[in-house]
Amino acid sequence: METSRSPGLPALRRERVLAEMAASGLETVVLSTPESVHYATGHRSLTATLHRGPAVAAVVTAARTVLVVPAGEAAAAEEALGGTGDLVTYGEFYFAHADGSVTSGDYPDLPSALGAVLPKTPAQKPAEKPAQKSALKPVRKPAVEWGGLTRPPAALDGAPAADEWIRTVRAVKLPGEQELLRKAARLAEDAIAAALDQAAAGVTERELAAVIAGAMAAGGGEPGFVVVTSGERSALSDAYPADRACRPGDLVRFDVGCRYQGYWSDVARTAVVGPPDERRRRFYEALAAGQEAEFVMAKPGVRACDVFAAAVRAVEAHGGPRPYRRRHVGHAIGLSVYETPVIEPADETVLRPGMVFSLETPYYELGWGGMMAEDAGVVTEHGFELFTRTDRGLRVIP
Amino acid sequence: METSRSPGLPALRRERVLAEMAASGLETVVLSTPESVHYATGHRSLTATLHRGPAVAAVVTAARTVLVVPAGEAAAAEEALGGTGDLVTYGEFYFAHADGSVTSGDYPDLPSALGAVLPKTPAQKPAEKPAQKSALKPVRKPAVEWGGLTRPPAALDGAPAADEWIRTVRAVKLPGEQELLRKAARLAEDAIAAALDQAAAGVTERELAAVIAGAMAAGGGEPGFVVVTSGERSALSDAYPADRACRPGDLVRFDVGCRYQGYWSDVARTAVVGPPDERRRRFYEALAAGQEAEFVMAKPGVRACDVFAAAVRAVEAHGGPRPYRRRHVGHAIGLSVYETPVIEPADETVLRPGMVFSLETPYYELGWGGMMAEDAGVVTEHGFELFTRTDRGLRVIP
Repeated sequence: METSRSPGLPALRRERVLAEMAASGLETVVLSTPESVHYATGHRSLTATLHRGPAVAAVVTAARTVLVVPAGEAAAAEEALGGTGDLVTYGEFYFAHADGSVTSGDYPDLPSALGAVLPKTPAQKPAEKPAQKSALKPVRKPAVEWGGLTRPPAALDGAPAADEWIRTVRAVKLPGEQELLRKAARLAEDAIAAALDQAAAGVTERELAAVIAGAMAAGGGEPGFVVVTSGERSALSDAYPADRACRPGDLVRFDVGCRYQGYWSDVARTAVVGPPDERRRRFYEALAAGQEAEFVMAKPGVRACDVFAAAVRAVEAHGGPRPYRRRHVGHAIGLSVYETPVIEPADETVLRPGMVFSLETPYYELGWGGMMAEDAGVVTEHGFELFTRTDRGLRVIP
Repeated sequence: METSRSPGLPALRRERVLAEMAASGLETVVLSTPESVHYATGHRSLTATLHRGPAVAAVVTAARTVLVVPAGEAAAAEEALGGTGDLVTYGEFYFAHADGSVTSGDYPDLPSALGAVLPKTPAQKPAEKPAQKSALKPVRKPAVEWGGLTRPPAALDGAPAADEWIRTVRAVKLPGEQELLRKAARLAEDAIAAALDQAAAGVTERELAAVIAGAMAAGGGEPGFVVVTSGERSALSDAYPADRACRPGDLVRFDVGCRYQGYWSDVARTAVVGPPDERRRRFYEALAAGQEAEFVMAKPGVRACDVFAAAVRAVEAHGGPRPYRRRHVGHAIGLSVYETPVIEPADETVLRPGMVFSLETPYYELGWGGMMAEDAGVVTEHGFELFTRTDRGLRVIP
């Protein structure tokens, strides 16, 4: 079933982290979001998807990786590390062993576990090896991804931030990551296609959402969000589906995403029940021209903000909403659904091969409706290569 | 499709919050976790499921509720409030209107939005109505659910905590909530049953997980976690399914949950490929006796810790693992998968009618395997009423 999985991906990601650390002169990096920890260690925390707050952390140095997890994840983390790092656990959770013994967490909580595994300062190093070069080398504070830490250990006081750094590392996707993101995108677009096959006047948003979630799940995806909104509700943007039945003349907007082995998709399509009126047709074509302008612009050397400007210009030039106001018209996607760069006016990041984006030109008019297409693809040397294959046009539900 | 939905549930929950505030002498409560905000206002944040960090908040007083949401959720939140409260938005997100105008968030971020809507102290009240009683009444600091606030506004400095208070309010489930929790539990157990129908030597954990997630989703549930682990992996506790194929003699452990209209399930079953050996049979029967002891004990007036003690005693008395070490053998469940009370030694909460629990007696032995049943039900005047109906015994996969 998992023929597309690259078996060496965790090792390749770890190598990339270490290479980027060396290039940046970083000796030690502390990661704290579940996604960055997954990236660097191969361990995907299940607990983190169920609870708020910090669940896992990793201390990465060239010599070794130390992974900190809740005790209930100890065995799963051990399996994921496969000998590539050390494990430290916290909290109370009992695993039994064949000899009748029982083990639980090493420390009471994450801050104490993390504090215990942080590298010691030179003063705290054993005194018996004073002549060794390594003992004389100044040990800098680790760089810290603060984003996942609500109670940082005191040992990290004043340490520099690594949040932006790890985002930049994760922004260029390895071929194995691109493959998983392509798979996730296709699960989402195929699920929408399955719903469109069943869409008709009288069918409810919730019924269509169940078709979509069921199709993504049956294909091995983990449904993340399933927005199906119809009629005036199609303008609601981030809204859950309701029991509202589709009616003739309705716009029906689908915006859905799933995770595939941790990697996200975010794909949107729009349909209309019966033939669209002139305004709908014109607006949709203008929005599609905006998205198309992004596909053309999204190539190496172009800045994110320039892609944004091209999209807005195209929407307005093709008779779309004017002014066409958006905060962004797309975002990088990976182990998180929203990553950087963001296709927005303030983001001057220069696009590089391997960056994966979800590109979209949505329009939400309250009382009238919402419409959009959203598609993911990868920046290559030759331009933007779409992951999705299904029709992006305004679909007519007969 | 949604025949089981109680249409008045959001209103009944809001009434319950106000009644409990009055009973506790609280004038103003600030809620900050997405689940508590959903409970008190009816608005379920979609953004909160996609991003970390505070996404929504609510300021609740007897006179009115103010809901604070990201601007992209403004229209969905307005729909959910249905005139029962006021809305304040933050961040940049554009909705267009029929007159050509465009609106975005009221404030730049959640702390500033929340700070602006907090009740003013008497000194800050308009001076033109000095004779009014309400202006003379001392305004106390609001009680605050701190759990969802990483950057609390200064106006809340020193305010008392409402985290435990709102947990206690949410612990007793209204009939409409029980109905949704029953539905969620049945979606989970039926999904496991569908997987058991397809289980056989040679079928992988991931394939069984896809059946389970697909069945829950097709039934209108949102799959939350789908643990399917086999053989030695069945001991891994919180682990994602792998490509491992089931083999004769394997234990296969299912621990799955979905949300139904926001309400969680958490149900577990265990199977064995081919006839179980004596140790497996005996351990499973002892664990089942422990869970059965919980069902008998979980009635009004009994403390959570007493249910815990009864379960451990029963497992050990029936020839199970000895000592049987657990941090807990169950937990309340609702809009969050883990709620309080917890069935653990330190929790002396007295059970009350309407409390809903997932009760479980798992055993994880590394190198051997893991086994458990987990079932949800509600505490009633007459005892514990199970939501689930499927066979809890050790299932044999032929």
